[in-house]
Amino acid sequence: MADLDSTLSNLRVRIDAALMEALPPLPTPPRSVHEAMHYALLGAGKRIRPILCMVAAQSTGNHPETAMIPACAIEMIHAFSLVHDDLPCMDDDDFRRGRPTCHKQFSEAIALLAGDALVALAFSHIAQNAPAFCALRLVRELAEASGSEELIGGQVFDLEAEGKPIALQHLQDIHRRKTGALIRYSLRAGAVTQEAPEDEIMALDRFGTHLGILFQITDDILDIEGDPELLGKPIGSDQNNQKATYPAIMGLEEARHRAKTELICAVDALSPLGKRAELLTQIAEQVLTRRR
Amino acid sequence: MADLDSTLSNLRVRIDAALMEALPPLPTPPRSVHEAMHYALLGAGKRIRPILCMVAAQSTGNHPETAMIPACAIEMIHAFSLVHDDLPCMDDDDFRRGRPTCHKQFSEAIALLAGDALVALAFSHIAQNAPAFCALRLVRELAEASGSEELIGGQVFDLEAEGKPIALQHLQDIHRRKTGALIRYSLRAGAVTQEAPEDEIMALDRFGTHLGILFQITDDILDIEGDPELLGKPIGSDQNNQKATYPAIMGLEEARHRAKTELICAVDALSPLGKRAELLTQIAEQVLTRRR
Repeated sequence: MADLDSTLSNLRVRIDAALMEALPPLPTPPRSVHEAMHYALLGAGKRIRPILCMVAAQSTGNHPETAMIPACAIEMIHAFSLVHDDLPCMDDDDFRRGRPTCHKQFSEAIALLAGDALVALAFSHIAQNAPAFCALRLVRELAEASGSEELIGGQVFDLEAEGKPIALQHLQDIHRRKTGALIRYSLRAGAVTQEAPEDEIMALDRFGTHLGILFQITDDILDIEGDPELLGKPIGSDQNNQKATYPAIMGLEEARHRAKTELICAVDALSPLGKRAELLTQIAEQVLTRRR
Repeated sequence: MADLDSTLSNLRVRIDAALMEALPPLPTPPRSVHEAMHYALLGAGKRIRPILCMVAAQSTGNHPETAMIPACAIEMIHAFSLVHDDLPCMDDDDFRRGRPTCHKQFSEAIALLAGDALVALAFSHIAQNAPAFCALRLVRELAEASGSEELIGGQVFDLEAEGKPIALQHLQDIHRRKTGALIRYSLRAGAVTQEAPEDEIMALDRFGTHLGILFQITDDILDIEGDPELLGKPIGSDQNNQKATYPAIMGLEEARHRAKTELICAVDALSPLGKRAELLTQIAEQVLTRRR
Protein backbone atom coordinates (compact mmCIF):
# COMPACT_ATOMS: atom_id res chain seq x y z
CA MET A 1 0.00 0.00 0.00
CA ALA A 2 2.97 2.29 0.66
CA ASP A 3 4.08 1.53 -2.90
CA LEU A 4 0.66 2.39 -4.27
CA ASP A 5 0.51 5.60 -2.26
CA SER A 6 3.88 6.76 -3.50
CA THR A 7 3.05 5.80 -7.10
CA LEU A 8 -0.14 7.82 -6.93
CA SER A 9 1.45 10.79 -5.24
CA ASN A 10 4.22 10.85 -7.85
CA LEU A 11 1.58 10.84 -10.54
CA ARG A 12 -0.27 13.63 -8.77
CA VAL A 13 2.84 15.80 -8.74
CA ARG A 14 3.37 15.28 -12.46
CA ILE A 15 -0.30 15.99 -13.20
CA ASP A 16 -0.24 19.20 -11.16
CA ALA A 17 2.86 20.36 -13.02
CA ALA A 18 1.21 19.61 -16.38
CA LEU A 19 -1.97 21.44 -15.36
CA MET A 20 0.03 24.49 -14.32
CA GLU A 21 1.87 24.38 -17.65
CA ALA A 22 -1.42 24.13 -19.59
CA LEU A 23 -3.01 27.18 -17.95
CA PRO A 24 -2.61 30.68 -19.36
CA PRO A 25 0.35 32.12 -17.41
CA LEU A 26 -0.38 34.76 -14.75
CA PRO A 27 -0.77 37.69 -14.91
CA THR A 28 -1.79 37.52 -18.60
CA PRO A 29 -4.97 39.57 -19.10
CA PRO A 30 -7.84 39.10 -18.51
CA ARG A 31 -6.19 38.60 -15.17
CA SER A 32 -9.30 38.06 -13.04
CA VAL A 33 -10.59 35.13 -15.06
CA HIS A 34 -7.14 33.60 -15.42
CA GLU A 35 -6.61 33.79 -11.67
CA ALA A 36 -9.99 32.13 -11.16
CA MET A 37 -9.04 29.36 -13.60
CA HIS A 38 -5.80 28.73 -11.66
CA TYR A 39 -7.74 28.77 -8.38
CA ALA A 40 -10.35 26.30 -9.61
CA LEU A 41 -7.99 23.93 -11.41
CA LEU A 42 -5.01 23.85 -9.05
CA GLY A 43 -6.86 23.43 -5.74
CA ALA A 44 -6.34 20.45 -3.48
CA GLY A 45 -8.20 17.96 -5.68
CA LYS A 46 -7.47 14.23 -5.55
CA ARG A 47 -6.84 14.16 -9.33
CA ILE A 48 -8.70 10.84 -9.52
CA ARG A 49 -9.72 11.19 -13.17
CA PRO A 50 -6.30 12.17 -14.56
CA ILE A 51 -4.70 9.44 -12.45
CA LEU A 52 -7.06 6.85 -13.92
CA CYS A 53 -6.25 8.16 -17.38
CA MET A 54 -2.49 7.87 -16.82
CA VAL A 55 -2.73 4.42 -15.21
CA ALA A 56 -5.01 3.14 -17.99
CA ALA A 57 -2.32 4.26 -20.45
CA GLN A 58 0.43 2.55 -18.43
CA SER A 59 -1.66 -0.63 -18.41
CA THR A 60 -2.23 -0.70 -22.16
CA GLY A 61 0.77 0.82 -23.89
CA ASN A 62 4.38 1.86 -24.01
CA HIS A 63 4.05 5.66 -24.24
CA PRO A 64 1.88 6.50 -21.23
CA GLU A 65 3.15 10.09 -21.10
CA THR A 66 0.94 10.88 -24.13
CA ALA A 67 -2.06 10.33 -21.86
CA MET A 68 -1.10 13.46 -19.90
CA ILE A 69 -2.84 15.50 -22.62
CA PRO A 70 -6.37 14.09 -22.17
CA ALA A 71 -5.63 13.73 -18.42
CA CYS A 72 -5.26 17.51 -18.12
CA ALA A 73 -8.31 18.18 -20.31
CA ILE A 74 -10.41 15.87 -18.12
CA GLU A 75 -9.40 17.70 -14.96
CA MET A 76 -10.31 21.02 -16.65
CA ILE A 77 -13.80 19.69 -17.45
CA HIS A 78 -14.11 18.33 -13.91
CA ALA A 79 -13.05 21.68 -12.41
CA PHE A 80 -15.50 23.55 -14.67
CA SER A 81 -18.36 21.31 -13.55
CA LEU A 82 -17.55 21.92 -9.88
CA VAL A 83 -17.33 25.70 -10.33
CA HIS A 84 -20.71 25.86 -12.08
CA ASP A 85 -22.23 23.32 -9.67
CA ASP A 86 -21.25 25.49 -6.69
CA LEU A 87 -22.90 28.65 -8.09
CA PRO A 88 -25.82 30.16 -6.15
CA CYS A 89 -28.34 29.13 -8.81
CA MET A 90 -27.13 25.52 -8.51
CA ASP A 91 -25.97 24.01 -5.18
CA ASP A 92 -25.06 27.41 -3.69
CA ASP A 93 -21.99 26.15 -1.85
CA ASP A 94 -19.64 28.53 -0.07
CA PHE A 95 -16.81 26.10 0.57
CA ARG A 96 -15.14 23.29 -1.34
CA ARG A 97 -12.16 21.29 -0.12
CA GLY A 98 -11.77 23.65 2.82
CA ARG A 99 -11.50 26.84 0.71
CA PRO A 100 -14.08 29.40 -0.44
CA THR A 101 -15.72 28.28 -3.68
CA CYS A 102 -14.66 30.09 -6.84
CA HIS A 103 -17.58 32.53 -6.86
CA LYS A 104 -16.96 33.36 -3.20
CA GLN A 105 -13.27 33.99 -3.81
CA PHE A 106 -13.86 36.03 -6.99
CA SER A 107 -17.42 36.87 -8.07
CA GLU A 108 -20.31 34.99 -9.62
CA ALA A 109 -19.62 36.50 -13.03
CA ILE A 110 -15.92 35.64 -12.96
CA ALA A 111 -16.62 32.11 -11.70
CA LEU A 112 -19.17 31.58 -14.47
CA LEU A 113 -16.70 32.78 -17.11
CA ALA A 114 -13.76 30.89 -15.59
CA GLY A 115 -15.82 27.70 -15.84
CA ASP A 116 -16.67 28.48 -19.46
CA ALA A 117 -13.03 29.22 -20.21
CA LEU A 118 -11.87 25.92 -18.67
CA VAL A 119 -14.11 24.05 -21.13
CA ALA A 120 -12.65 25.93 -24.10
CA LEU A 121 -9.16 25.29 -22.74
CA ALA A 122 -9.85 21.56 -22.38
CA PHE A 123 -10.77 21.23 -26.04
CA SER A 124 -7.98 23.46 -27.33
CA HIS A 125 -5.48 21.59 -25.13
CA ILE A 126 -6.34 18.30 -26.81
CA ALA A 127 -6.65 19.76 -30.30
CA GLN A 128 -3.29 21.50 -30.02
CA ASN A 129 -1.27 18.80 -28.33
CA ALA A 130 -2.66 15.30 -28.86
CA PRO A 131 -1.11 13.14 -31.59
CA ALA A 132 -3.03 13.24 -34.87
CA PHE A 133 -4.00 9.56 -34.72
CA CYS A 134 -6.16 10.03 -31.63
CA ALA A 135 -6.86 13.77 -31.19
CA LEU A 136 -10.24 13.81 -32.90
CA ARG A 137 -11.52 10.77 -31.05
CA LEU A 138 -10.37 12.28 -27.75
CA VAL A 139 -12.25 15.50 -28.57
CA ARG A 140 -15.38 13.70 -29.71
CA GLU A 141 -15.66 11.41 -26.71
CA LEU A 142 -14.87 14.22 -24.26
CA ALA A 143 -17.57 16.42 -25.82
CA GLU A 144 -20.04 13.55 -25.54
CA ALA A 145 -19.05 12.71 -21.95
CA SER A 146 -19.56 16.34 -20.91
CA GLY A 147 -22.73 16.94 -22.93
CA SER A 148 -26.42 17.15 -22.15
CA GLU A 149 -26.92 13.40 -22.04
CA GLU A 150 -23.95 12.67 -19.76
CA LEU A 151 -22.19 15.03 -17.30
CA ILE A 152 -24.56 17.97 -17.76
CA GLY A 153 -27.57 15.68 -18.00
CA GLY A 154 -26.57 14.18 -14.65
CA GLN A 155 -26.46 17.65 -13.11
CA VAL A 156 -29.95 18.36 -14.45
CA PHE A 157 -31.41 15.10 -13.12
CA ASP A 158 -29.67 15.66 -9.80
CA LEU A 159 -31.18 19.15 -9.58
CA GLU A 160 -34.63 17.89 -10.46
CA ALA A 161 -34.47 15.03 -7.94
CA GLU A 162 -33.62 17.35 -5.03
CA GLY A 163 -35.80 16.79 -2.00
CA LYS A 164 -37.81 14.04 -3.71
CA PRO A 165 -37.73 10.36 -2.80
CA ILE A 166 -36.10 8.51 -5.70
CA ALA A 167 -35.65 4.85 -6.55
CA LEU A 168 -32.28 3.10 -6.68
CA GLN A 169 -32.34 2.89 -10.45
CA HIS A 170 -32.88 6.63 -10.78
CA LEU A 171 -30.05 7.31 -8.33
CA GLN A 172 -27.74 5.07 -10.34
CA ASP A 173 -28.75 6.79 -13.56
CA ILE A 174 -27.87 10.20 -12.09
CA HIS A 175 -24.45 9.00 -10.94
CA ARG A 176 -23.79 7.13 -14.18
CA ARG A 177 -24.09 10.45 -15.98
CA LYS A 178 -22.87 12.95 -13.42
CA THR A 179 -19.69 11.19 -12.33
CA GLY A 180 -19.59 7.90 -14.26
CA ALA A 181 -19.31 9.38 -17.76
CA LEU A 182 -16.12 11.31 -17.06
CA ILE A 183 -14.54 8.43 -15.09
CA ARG A 184 -15.21 6.03 -17.97
CA TYR A 185 -13.86 8.58 -20.45
CA SER A 186 -10.71 8.99 -18.35
CA LEU A 187 -9.95 5.29 -18.56
CA ARG A 188 -10.85 4.98 -22.25
CA ALA A 189 -8.88 8.09 -23.21
CA GLY A 190 -5.73 6.75 -21.57
CA ALA A 191 -6.00 3.57 -23.62
CA VAL A 192 -6.91 5.45 -26.81
CA THR A 193 -3.62 7.37 -26.62
CA GLN A 194 -1.82 4.00 -26.62
CA GLU A 195 -3.67 2.66 -29.66
CA ALA A 196 -4.98 -0.11 -27.41
CA PRO A 197 -7.24 -2.72 -29.02
CA GLU A 198 -10.96 -2.04 -28.74
CA ASP A 199 -11.59 -4.98 -26.37
CA GLU A 200 -9.16 -3.48 -23.86
CA ILE A 201 -10.83 -0.07 -24.21
CA MET A 202 -14.22 -1.71 -23.60
CA ALA A 203 -12.81 -3.58 -20.58
CA LEU A 204 -11.62 -0.27 -19.11
CA ASP A 205 -15.02 1.28 -19.80
CA ARG A 206 -16.77 -1.51 -17.87
CA PHE A 207 -14.21 -1.18 -15.06
CA GLY A 208 -15.05 2.54 -14.99
CA THR A 209 -18.77 1.87 -14.65
CA HIS A 210 -18.27 -0.25 -11.52
CA LEU A 211 -15.53 1.97 -10.12
CA GLY A 212 -17.83 4.98 -10.47
CA ILE A 213 -20.59 3.28 -8.48
CA LEU A 214 -18.07 2.01 -5.91
CA PHE A 215 -16.76 5.52 -5.54
CA GLN A 216 -20.22 6.95 -5.03
CA ILE A 217 -21.26 4.34 -2.46
CA THR A 218 -18.10 4.84 -0.39
CA ASP A 219 -18.64 8.61 -0.64
CA ASP A 220 -22.14 8.20 0.74
CA ILE A 221 -20.92 5.89 3.52
CA LEU A 222 -18.11 8.26 4.52
CA ASP A 223 -20.67 11.04 4.88
CA ILE A 224 -22.30 8.89 7.57
CA GLU A 225 -19.41 7.36 9.45
CA GLY A 226 -16.26 9.06 8.17
CA ASP A 227 -13.78 11.10 10.19
CA PRO A 228 -14.50 14.82 9.62
CA GLU A 229 -10.83 15.64 10.16
CA LEU A 230 -9.58 13.16 7.56
CA LEU A 231 -12.36 14.19 5.16
CA GLY A 232 -11.71 17.90 5.63
CA LYS A 233 -15.46 18.52 5.87
CA PRO A 234 -18.28 17.88 8.34
CA ILE A 235 -20.21 14.61 7.98
CA GLY A 236 -23.99 14.19 7.89
CA SER A 237 -24.58 16.78 5.17
CA ASP A 238 -26.39 14.30 2.88
CA GLN A 239 -28.91 13.51 5.61
CA ASN A 240 -29.28 17.18 6.54
CA ASN A 241 -29.98 18.00 2.89
CA GLN A 242 -32.29 14.97 2.49
CA LYS A 243 -30.08 13.83 -0.37
CA ALA A 244 -30.78 10.50 -2.02
CA THR A 245 -27.85 8.19 -1.22
CA TYR A 246 -27.17 4.46 -1.37
CA PRO A 247 -27.38 4.02 2.43
CA ALA A 248 -30.60 6.09 2.54
CA ILE A 249 -32.21 3.91 -0.09
CA MET A 250 -30.88 0.44 0.85
CA GLY A 251 -29.56 0.83 4.40
CA LEU A 252 -25.93 1.05 5.54
CA GLU A 253 -25.23 -2.69 5.72
CA GLU A 254 -26.61 -3.38 2.27
CA ALA A 255 -24.67 -0.38 0.88
CA ARG A 256 -21.44 -1.83 2.32
CA HIS A 257 -22.23 -5.18 0.75
CA ARG A 258 -23.01 -3.51 -2.56
CA ALA A 259 -19.68 -1.66 -2.51
CA LYS A 260 -17.84 -5.00 -2.18
CA THR A 261 -19.85 -6.43 -5.07
CA GLU A 262 -18.98 -3.44 -7.26
CA LEU A 263 -15.29 -3.94 -6.45
CA ILE A 264 -15.52 -7.58 -7.52
CA CYS A 265 -17.27 -6.61 -10.77
CA ALA A 266 -14.74 -3.84 -11.43
CA VAL A 267 -11.77 -6.18 -11.01
CA ASP A 268 -13.49 -8.84 -13.05
CA ALA A 269 -13.99 -6.40 -15.94
CA LEU A 270 -10.22 -5.97 -16.16
CA SER A 271 -9.56 -9.64 -16.94
CA PRO A 272 -8.64 -8.96 -20.62
CA LEU A 273 -5.64 -6.98 -19.30
CA GLY A 274 -4.23 -9.92 -17.28
CA LYS A 275 -1.24 -8.95 -15.16
CA ARG A 276 -1.33 -5.39 -16.54
CA ALA A 277 -4.48 -4.77 -14.48
CA GLU A 278 -2.58 -4.82 -11.21
CA LEU A 279 -2.31 -1.09 -10.52
CA LEU A 280 -5.93 -0.39 -11.49
CA THR A 281 -7.03 -3.26 -9.25
CA GLN A 282 -5.08 -1.79 -6.34
CA ILE A 283 -6.68 1.61 -6.95
CA ALA A 284 -10.17 0.08 -6.91
CA GLU A 285 -9.36 -1.82 -3.69
CA GLN A 286 -8.17 1.39 -2.13
CA VAL A 287 -11.44 3.11 -3.03
CA LEU A 288 -13.32 0.47 -1.02
CA THR A 289 -11.21 0.94 2.10
CA ARG A 290 -10.51 4.66 1.80
CA ARG A 291 -11.13 6.89 4.79
CA ARG A 292 -11.24 10.12 2.78
CA MET B 1 -30.47 44.08 -53.08
CA ALA B 2 -33.60 41.93 -53.57
CA ASP B 3 -31.27 39.21 -54.84
CA LEU B 4 -29.03 39.52 -51.81
CA ASP B 5 -31.98 39.44 -49.44
CA SER B 6 -33.39 36.29 -50.99
CA THR B 7 -29.96 34.63 -51.07
CA LEU B 8 -29.50 35.35 -47.38
CA SER B 9 -32.98 34.29 -46.40
CA ASN B 10 -32.57 31.02 -48.30
CA LEU B 11 -29.33 30.43 -46.43
CA ARG B 12 -31.06 31.25 -43.15
CA VAL B 13 -33.75 28.64 -43.80
CA ARG B 14 -31.13 25.97 -44.52
CA ILE B 15 -29.13 26.97 -41.44
CA ASP B 16 -32.20 26.80 -39.20
CA ALA B 17 -33.03 23.35 -40.55
CA ALA B 18 -29.48 22.17 -39.90
CA LEU B 19 -29.51 23.60 -36.37
CA MET B 20 -32.78 21.82 -35.62
CA GLU B 21 -31.30 18.59 -36.96
CA ALA B 22 -28.16 19.00 -34.83
CA LEU B 23 -30.04 19.47 -31.55
CA PRO B 24 -31.02 16.53 -29.34
CA PRO B 25 -34.61 15.73 -30.40
CA LEU B 26 -37.43 16.68 -28.04
CA PRO B 27 -38.58 15.33 -25.67
CA THR B 28 -35.40 13.30 -25.06
CA PRO B 29 -34.49 13.54 -21.37
CA PRO B 30 -33.20 15.64 -19.69
CA ARG B 31 -36.14 17.42 -21.22
CA SER B 32 -35.81 20.77 -19.43
CA VAL B 33 -32.27 21.42 -20.59
CA HIS B 34 -32.98 20.17 -24.10
CA GLU B 35 -35.98 22.50 -24.36
CA ALA B 36 -33.82 25.37 -23.17
CA MET B 37 -31.19 24.51 -25.79
CA HIS B 38 -33.85 24.58 -28.52
CA TYR B 39 -35.21 27.87 -27.16
CA ALA B 40 -31.80 29.53 -27.07
CA LEU B 41 -30.53 28.21 -30.40
CA LEU B 42 -33.64 28.44 -32.57
CA GLY B 43 -34.83 31.92 -31.58
CA ALA B 44 -35.17 34.73 -34.08
CA GLY B 45 -31.45 35.34 -34.51
CA LYS B 46 -30.01 36.86 -37.67
CA ARG B 47 -27.63 33.89 -38.16
CA ILE B 48 -24.89 36.33 -39.19
CA ARG B 49 -22.02 34.08 -38.22
CA PRO B 50 -23.24 30.89 -39.91
CA ILE B 51 -24.15 32.92 -43.00
CA LEU B 52 -20.62 34.33 -43.15
CA CYS B 53 -19.25 30.81 -42.78
CA MET B 54 -21.40 29.49 -45.63
CA VAL B 55 -20.67 32.44 -47.92
CA ALA B 56 -16.93 32.24 -47.22
CA ALA B 57 -17.11 28.59 -48.29
CA GLN B 58 -19.05 29.47 -51.46
CA SER B 59 -16.40 32.08 -52.24
CA THR B 60 -13.46 29.76 -51.87
CA GLY B 61 -14.52 26.27 -52.90
CA ASN B 62 -16.78 23.85 -54.68
CA HIS B 63 -18.37 22.00 -51.74
CA PRO B 64 -19.82 24.81 -49.63
CA GLU B 65 -22.36 22.52 -47.99
CA THR B 66 -19.51 21.08 -45.87
CA ALA B 67 -19.32 24.46 -44.16
CA MET B 68 -22.75 23.85 -42.62
CA ILE B 69 -20.98 21.77 -39.94
CA PRO B 70 -18.82 24.57 -38.45
CA ALA B 71 -21.65 27.04 -39.26
CA CYS B 72 -23.94 25.21 -36.82
CA ALA B 73 -21.21 24.86 -34.21
CA ILE B 74 -20.53 28.61 -34.38
CA GLU B 75 -24.18 29.45 -33.81
CA MET B 76 -24.19 27.09 -30.81
CA ILE B 77 -21.22 28.92 -29.29
CA HIS B 78 -22.86 32.26 -30.07
CA ALA B 79 -26.15 31.16 -28.44
CA PHE B 80 -24.26 29.85 -25.38
CA SER B 81 -22.48 33.19 -24.97
CA LEU B 82 -25.78 35.11 -25.12
CA VAL B 83 -27.47 32.81 -22.59
CA HIS B 84 -24.62 33.19 -20.09
CA ASP B 85 -24.27 36.92 -20.84
CA ASP B 86 -27.96 37.48 -20.00
CA LEU B 87 -27.74 35.76 -16.58
CA PRO B 88 -28.39 37.87 -13.48
CA CYS B 89 -24.74 37.75 -12.42
CA MET B 90 -23.73 39.14 -15.84
CA ASP B 91 -25.90 41.66 -17.74
CA ASP B 92 -29.12 40.59 -15.98
CA ASP B 93 -31.32 40.97 -19.06
CA ASP B 94 -34.96 39.88 -19.01
CA PHE B 95 -35.59 40.12 -22.74
CA ARG B 96 -33.68 39.30 -25.90
CA ARG B 97 -35.04 39.65 -29.41
CA GLY B 98 -38.50 40.36 -28.03
CA ARG B 99 -38.75 37.20 -25.93
CA PRO B 100 -37.93 36.41 -22.31
CA THR B 101 -34.26 35.47 -21.92
CA CYS B 102 -33.48 31.80 -21.37
CA HIS B 103 -33.22 32.04 -17.57
CA LYS B 104 -36.53 33.94 -17.44
CA GLN B 105 -38.25 31.33 -19.58
CA PHE B 106 -36.76 28.37 -17.70
CA SER B 107 -34.62 28.99 -14.61
CA GLU B 108 -31.14 30.24 -13.90
CA ALA B 109 -29.85 26.74 -13.30
CA ILE B 110 -31.33 25.36 -16.49
CA ALA B 111 -30.08 28.35 -18.52
CA LEU B 112 -26.60 27.91 -17.09
CA LEU B 113 -26.57 24.21 -17.95
CA ALA B 114 -28.17 24.72 -21.38
CA GLY B 115 -25.35 27.15 -22.20
CA ASP B 116 -22.77 24.62 -21.01
CA ALA B 117 -24.44 21.88 -23.04
CA LEU B 118 -24.45 24.02 -26.22
CA VAL B 119 -20.66 24.31 -25.95
CA ALA B 120 -20.25 20.55 -25.62
CA LEU B 121 -22.64 20.07 -28.54
CA ALA B 122 -20.67 22.51 -30.72
CA PHE B 123 -17.48 20.52 -30.27
CA SER B 124 -19.10 17.11 -30.64
CA HIS B 125 -20.96 18.33 -33.74
CA ILE B 126 -17.68 19.18 -35.46
CA ALA B 127 -15.81 16.15 -34.18
CA GLN B 128 -18.59 13.80 -35.30
CA ASN B 129 -19.43 15.32 -38.66
CA ALA B 130 -16.60 17.36 -40.16
CA PRO B 131 -14.37 15.69 -42.76
CA ALA B 132 -11.15 14.27 -41.33
CA PHE B 133 -8.91 16.66 -43.27
CA CYS B 134 -10.24 19.74 -41.44
CA ALA B 135 -12.06 18.56 -38.29
CA LEU B 136 -9.19 19.00 -35.87
CA ARG B 137 -8.30 22.47 -37.16
CA LEU B 138 -11.97 23.49 -36.89
CA VAL B 139 -12.07 22.28 -33.28
CA ARG B 140 -8.78 23.92 -32.36
CA GLU B 141 -9.59 27.31 -33.81
CA LEU B 142 -13.14 27.29 -32.38
CA ALA B 143 -11.79 26.45 -28.92
CA GLU B 144 -9.31 29.32 -29.22
CA ALA B 145 -11.91 31.78 -30.54
CA SER B 146 -14.20 31.00 -27.62
CA GLY B 147 -11.50 30.86 -24.94
CA SER B 148 -10.30 33.17 -22.19
CA GLU B 149 -8.24 35.34 -24.51
CA GLU B 150 -10.96 35.83 -27.13
CA LEU B 151 -14.77 35.53 -26.70
CA ILE B 152 -14.72 34.96 -22.94
CA GLY B 153 -11.88 37.43 -22.46
CA GLY B 154 -14.00 40.04 -24.25
CA GLN B 155 -16.88 39.39 -21.86
CA VAL B 156 -14.53 39.84 -18.90
CA PHE B 157 -13.09 43.12 -20.20
CA ASP B 158 -16.58 44.34 -21.04
CA LEU B 159 -17.73 43.53 -17.50
CA GLU B 160 -14.75 45.25 -15.95
CA ALA B 161 -15.16 48.37 -18.12
CA GLU B 162 -18.81 48.87 -17.07
CA GLY B 163 -19.55 52.40 -15.95
CA LYS B 164 -15.93 53.51 -16.46
CA PRO B 165 -14.77 55.93 -19.14
CA ILE B 166 -12.60 53.98 -21.58
CA ALA B 167 -10.40 54.92 -24.50
CA LEU B 168 -11.12 54.02 -28.11
CA GLN B 169 -8.33 51.46 -28.21
CA HIS B 170 -9.71 49.66 -25.16
CA LEU B 171 -13.21 49.64 -26.69
CA GLN B 172 -11.83 48.15 -29.90
CA ASP B 173 -9.92 45.54 -27.95
CA ILE B 174 -13.12 44.46 -26.16
CA HIS B 175 -15.04 44.13 -29.43
CA ARG B 176 -12.15 42.43 -31.21
CA ARG B 177 -12.41 39.67 -28.62
CA LYS B 178 -16.10 39.65 -27.72
CA THR B 179 -17.56 39.69 -31.22
CA GLY B 180 -14.61 39.88 -33.61
CA ALA B 181 -13.03 36.54 -32.74
CA LEU B 182 -16.10 34.47 -33.61
CA ILE B 183 -16.82 36.49 -36.78
CA ARG B 184 -13.25 35.96 -37.99
CA TYR B 185 -13.48 32.26 -37.13
CA SER B 186 -16.76 31.97 -39.05
CA LEU B 187 -15.12 33.24 -42.22
CA ARG B 188 -11.92 31.24 -41.77
CA ALA B 189 -13.80 28.03 -40.95
CA GLY B 190 -15.87 28.28 -44.14
CA ALA B 191 -12.68 28.51 -46.18
CA VAL B 192 -10.93 25.77 -44.18
CA THR B 193 -13.68 23.31 -45.12
CA GLN B 194 -12.89 24.07 -48.80
CA GLU B 195 -9.16 23.48 -48.42
CA ALA B 196 -8.68 27.10 -49.48
CA PRO B 197 -5.09 28.38 -49.75
CA GLU B 198 -3.76 30.11 -46.63
CA ASP B 199 -3.63 33.55 -48.30
CA GLU B 200 -7.38 33.39 -48.94
CA ILE B 201 -7.99 32.30 -45.35
CA MET B 202 -5.90 35.24 -44.15
CA ALA B 203 -7.80 37.61 -46.47
CA LEU B 204 -11.09 36.43 -44.97
CA ASP B 205 -9.67 36.88 -41.48
CA ARG B 206 -8.74 40.50 -42.24
CA PHE B 207 -12.16 41.06 -43.82
CA GLY B 208 -13.69 39.72 -40.60
CA THR B 209 -11.70 42.14 -38.45
CA HIS B 210 -13.08 45.16 -40.32
CA LEU B 211 -16.56 43.68 -40.68
CA GLY B 212 -16.69 43.10 -36.93
CA ILE B 213 -15.83 46.75 -36.21
CA LEU B 214 -18.26 47.95 -38.89
CA PHE B 215 -20.96 45.82 -37.32
CA GLN B 216 -20.29 47.23 -33.88
CA ILE B 217 -20.27 50.86 -35.00
CA THR B 218 -23.57 50.50 -36.88
CA ASP B 219 -25.00 48.73 -33.84
CA ASP B 220 -23.99 51.68 -31.66
CA ILE B 221 -25.43 54.18 -34.18
CA LEU B 222 -28.73 52.30 -34.46
CA ASP B 223 -29.09 52.48 -30.69
CA ILE B 224 -29.09 56.27 -31.07
CA GLU B 225 -31.08 56.90 -34.21
CA GLY B 226 -32.63 53.57 -35.20
CA ASP B 227 -36.32 52.77 -35.51
CA PRO B 228 -37.41 50.87 -32.37
CA GLU B 229 -40.05 49.01 -34.36
CA LEU B 230 -37.61 47.77 -36.99
CA LEU B 231 -35.05 46.96 -34.30
CA GLY B 232 -37.59 45.15 -32.14
CA LYS B 233 -36.16 46.87 -29.05
CA PRO B 234 -36.14 50.35 -27.52
CA ILE B 235 -33.29 52.68 -28.47
CA GLY B 236 -31.12 54.72 -26.13
CA SER B 237 -30.21 51.81 -23.86
CA ASP B 238 -26.44 52.33 -24.33
CA GLN B 239 -26.70 55.92 -23.13
CA ASN B 240 -29.00 54.96 -20.27
CA ASN B 241 -26.50 52.32 -19.19
CA GLN B 242 -23.55 54.67 -19.71
CA LYS B 243 -22.07 52.12 -22.06
CA ALA B 244 -18.89 52.92 -23.93
CA THR B 245 -19.75 53.15 -27.65
CA TYR B 246 -18.11 54.55 -30.76
CA PRO B 247 -20.46 57.57 -30.95
CA ALA B 248 -19.97 58.23 -27.23
CA ILE B 249 -16.20 58.26 -27.62
CA MET B 250 -15.77 59.97 -31.00
CA GLY B 251 -19.13 61.65 -31.72
CA LEU B 252 -21.87 60.52 -34.08
CA GLU B 253 -20.45 62.10 -37.25
CA GLU B 254 -16.98 60.69 -36.75
CA ALA B 255 -18.50 57.28 -35.98
CA ARG B 256 -20.42 57.38 -39.28
CA HIS B 257 -17.22 58.30 -41.09
CA ARG B 258 -15.36 55.52 -39.33
CA ALA B 259 -17.99 52.98 -40.37
CA LYS B 260 -17.45 53.92 -44.03
CA THR B 261 -13.71 53.58 -43.62
CA GLU B 262 -14.11 50.12 -42.11
CA LEU B 263 -16.27 49.08 -45.06
CA ILE B 264 -13.58 50.23 -47.49
CA CYS B 265 -10.90 48.32 -45.54
CA ALA B 266 -13.11 45.22 -45.36
CA VAL B 267 -13.73 45.17 -49.10
CA ASP B 268 -10.08 45.90 -49.78
CA ALA B 269 -9.04 42.88 -47.66
CA LEU B 270 -10.99 40.63 -50.03
CA SER B 271 -8.92 41.52 -53.09
CA PRO B 272 -7.14 38.12 -53.24
CA LEU B 273 -10.58 36.58 -53.94
CA GLY B 274 -11.20 38.76 -57.02
CA LYS B 275 -14.71 38.28 -58.46
CA ARG B 276 -15.48 35.60 -55.87
CA ALA B 277 -15.65 38.35 -53.22
CA GLU B 278 -18.89 39.76 -54.60
CA LEU B 279 -21.38 38.28 -52.14
CA LEU B 280 -19.24 39.04 -49.11
CA THR B 281 -18.81 42.60 -50.40
CA GLN B 282 -22.58 42.98 -50.71
CA ILE B 283 -23.06 41.68 -47.19
CA ALA B 284 -20.57 44.23 -45.82
CA GLU B 285 -22.28 47.03 -47.74
CA GLN B 286 -25.60 45.97 -46.31
CA VAL B 287 -24.18 46.11 -42.78
CA LEU B 288 -23.32 49.78 -43.34
CA THR B 289 -26.81 50.72 -44.51
CA ARG B 290 -28.82 48.32 -42.36
CA ARG B 291 -31.72 49.67 -40.36
CA ARG B 292 -31.91 46.70 -37.97
